[in-house]
Amino acid sequence: MAPTSPHSLARAARIASRSLAQSSSDIRQSALKNIADEIEKNRNFILASNQMDVEEAKKGNLAEAFIDRLLLNEERIGWITTDLRRVADLPDPVGEVFDEQLLPNGLNVRKQRVPMGVLAIIYEARPNVTVDAAGLAIKSGNTVILRGSRETLNSNRALVQSIHNGLKTTGLPEGSVQFVDSADRELVFELLKLHNEIDLIIPRGGSSLHKFCRENSLIPVITGGIGICHLFVDASADLARALPVVRNAKIQRPSVCNALDTVLVHSYIAGKFIPELVSTLTADGVTFHIDEAAANSLPTPLPSSVAPAREGDFDTEWLSLVLGIKVVNSLDEAIDHISEHSTAHSDGILTEDKANADTFVSRVDSAAVYVNASTRFTDGSQLGLGAEVAISTQRLHARGPMALRELTTFKWVIEGDYLARP
Amino acid sequence: MAPTSPHSLARAARIASRSLAQSSSDIRQSALKNIADEIEKNRNFILASNQMDVEEAKKGNLAEAFIDRLLLNEERIGWITTDLRRVADLPDPVGEVFDEQLLPNGLNVRKQRVPMGVLAIIYEARPNVTVDAAGLAIKSGNTVILRGSRETLNSNRALVQSIHNGLKTTGLPEGSVQFVDSADRELVFELLKLHNEIDLIIPRGGSSLHKFCRENSLIPVITGGIGICHLFVDASADLARALPVVRNAKIQRPSVCNALDTVLVHSYIAGKFIPELVSTLTADGVTFHIDEAAANSLPTPLPSSVAPAREGDFDTEWLSLVLGIKVVNSLDEAIDHISEHSTAHSDGILTEDKANADTFVSRVDSAAVYVNASTRFTDGSQLGLGAEVAISTQRLHARGPMALRELTTFKWVIEGDYLARP
Repeated sequence: MAPTSPHSLARAARIASRSLAQSSSDIRQSALKNIADEIEKNRNFILASNQMDVEEAKKGNLAEAFIDRLLLNEERIGWITTDLRRVADLPDPVGEVFDEQLLPNGLNVRKQRVPMGVLAIIYEARPNVTVDAAGLAIKSGNTVILRGSRETLNSNRALVQSIHNGLKTTGLPEGSVQFVDSADRELVFELLKLHNEIDLIIPRGGSSLHKFCRENSLIPVITGGIGICHLFVDASADLARALPVVRNAKIQRPSVCNALDTVLVHSYIAGKFIPELVSTLTADGVTFHIDEAAANSLPTPLPSSVAPAREGDFDTEWLSLVLGIKVVNSLDEAIDHISEHSTAHSDGILTEDKANADTFVSRVDSAAVYVNASTRFTDGSQLGLGAEVAISTQRLHARGPMALRELTTFKWVIEGDYLARP
Repeated sequence: MAPTSPHSLARAARIASRSLAQSSSDIRQSALKNIADEIEKNRNFILASNQMDVEEAKKGNLAEAFIDRLLLNEERIGWITTDLRRVADLPDPVGEVFDEQLLPNGLNVRKQRVPMGVLAIIYEARPNVTVDAAGLAIKSGNTVILRGSRETLNSNRALVQSIHNGLKTTGLPEGSVQFVDSADRELVFELLKLHNEIDLIIPRGGSSLHKFCRENSLIPVITGGIGICHLFVDASADLARALPVVRNAKIQRPSVCNALDTVLVHSYIAGKFIPELVSTLTADGVTFHIDEAAANSLPTPLPSSVAPAREGDFDTEWLSLVLGIKVVNSLDEAIDHISEHSTAHSDGILTEDKANADTFVSRVDSAAVYVNASTRFTDGSQLGLGAEVAISTQRLHARGPMALRELTTFKWVIEGDYLARP
């Protein structure tokens, strides 16, 4: 019988973490490949289990976008296993030695990278996260407690079975991956209290999940994934080249956190840029919430895709084909607007003026600050990390995309020759 | 009028943090020196204010050790200002650029070190912490909310006045250092909820203060400062050289967190080492709580400094001249004992056996792991950081001594040539 109370799950994870942390890099790499093999071998069972979840969701009249995120098929199983094998081959951060020095007092001091320990990942209806999170955790020497949503229970159960088989084949403890096999939300509440057994909580979902975790956890929580993102089109910007960047940031994948929410336009070029922006993006299906000055830069009558910005619009993460537009009279005004309204996720400037770029980079304190690039690059793969477990917008430990190295911590290793403190 | 509600204090700190973060390294360095000058200039007022606190404490029959921690005098004012000038001259971590790379997609990516933002430091009856914490915060570009204890209210009020004068002379906002000028504990509770205004809580005090912060905070908390520390004397150790290290770890300053609590002795050398240990440290005033095997290694009758270990003794941070002694039959048994009883602060091995040292370092996952050195070295100054704001025993962000660099975070700076995500 698998342990079922959050405390016994977490305790089992803690015990498994001791042997996982001692396992070699090669073994952890093989584990991910063996899990990928198991998932392929059990493909039919996984798909049948997923079908149960999908049918349940349809019966419950859940939104199509929701069902799409939930759905697995042959192709998506392929994506999952490809990703797992790719993560298997990433460099292993564990064991890295840094900041080594011989101190004047004779101590040899270094820092050595070690796994964080026990992670708990609490996520919504995406079964691929089950495998993704387990893979990143195992690769970085961490055990993990997975708590998916009610709607994916059958899919996750089947996937976790393959994960356990893969661990077993490799000779790693199955307890390295613990699964909360229950839809009871009370169990999440209990998990959040187990600060002696769990080292880090990673919520993956909407703002209410993050808020729930922050308010109830005795364990450090990585909050993030909420992005009210800005691009400021400076007076000096090459407007013909700026437009495709703004368009990319808004329309490439509007439902995600690094998509653009508000474009700030310098008054000097508003009359030229805003009409082009509105006309181009209207053709993409975008609608606009714009301030009065932006409206004044458009020919009348205003196109039907345009509405006046209402109170709160500039504090809204749209997650859809909606874009806020506001005219500002200076770089300072743009920076002040961002300080006030950004969630410190991803904000950028489009400019030809080096001094303005430098001022923007220095004064805008977001996890990712851009010059002449789309906010859509805030992503582990795009920024060279090879993967991503979360995008942090809190300030401690790691900001922006978090991957393998961000799932580790370090210890001080201090050697002397029978040295006592003077 | 100074703002008084926690929210207005915190809001003022947030606003000041924007200009402080933009100030130059030179200005922040001068600020610390100007504050030191002001403290010297206002020495008499500070000492008179402190005298009020000391008299109040005496009237309240507080313990002598408590009053000693509270007391300021000419010499201690000198220590405070010397420390401040030393921190002023430490290298500035803010602005450091690291992990810079040009990615295949054409993005130029780097990380840039920035202040954490707004710190809140909640501490007990040591007025030197007021200046120390303000100095470290300002030097690293952070604003800080100081909340000292009721018993130091007059001393802290006087010190904060000098700090504000020093900031003013330098041209930095006085709001960079906010002082909770009240003994009302409810205000701490309110501070802990202000996660939009405060970035990090640093408690400095006993375990109940840490627990209170962890249980009530919506803001990340650096827990630490609680050390159940071990040294394992391996069979191969040079016993004549090991004894002074154990003695140093226990007696040099028994009231602090990095002092030794339990010595684990390999059974092979217990008969030789334990009698010498007990006889030497008894002369230093140490008393011992020892297991049965350790008792068997001593000649009978047992010395009066020795008592049998009771339940819970090996889970006690002694903070006094008490030492636990336990005999273990192997390196594994020593490591298992440490895994079970350590608070993951500072633990070490004394050995001549390189393989045993490597195993110990690999398997003991404490913030500081020692080979042939005293646990007393876990200290910012001793480990080359120049100062210390806390010793973290949590795993996120920083472990062990935290100083200037550990009070910073980073942002990603990402530059392209009008680059859109493919």
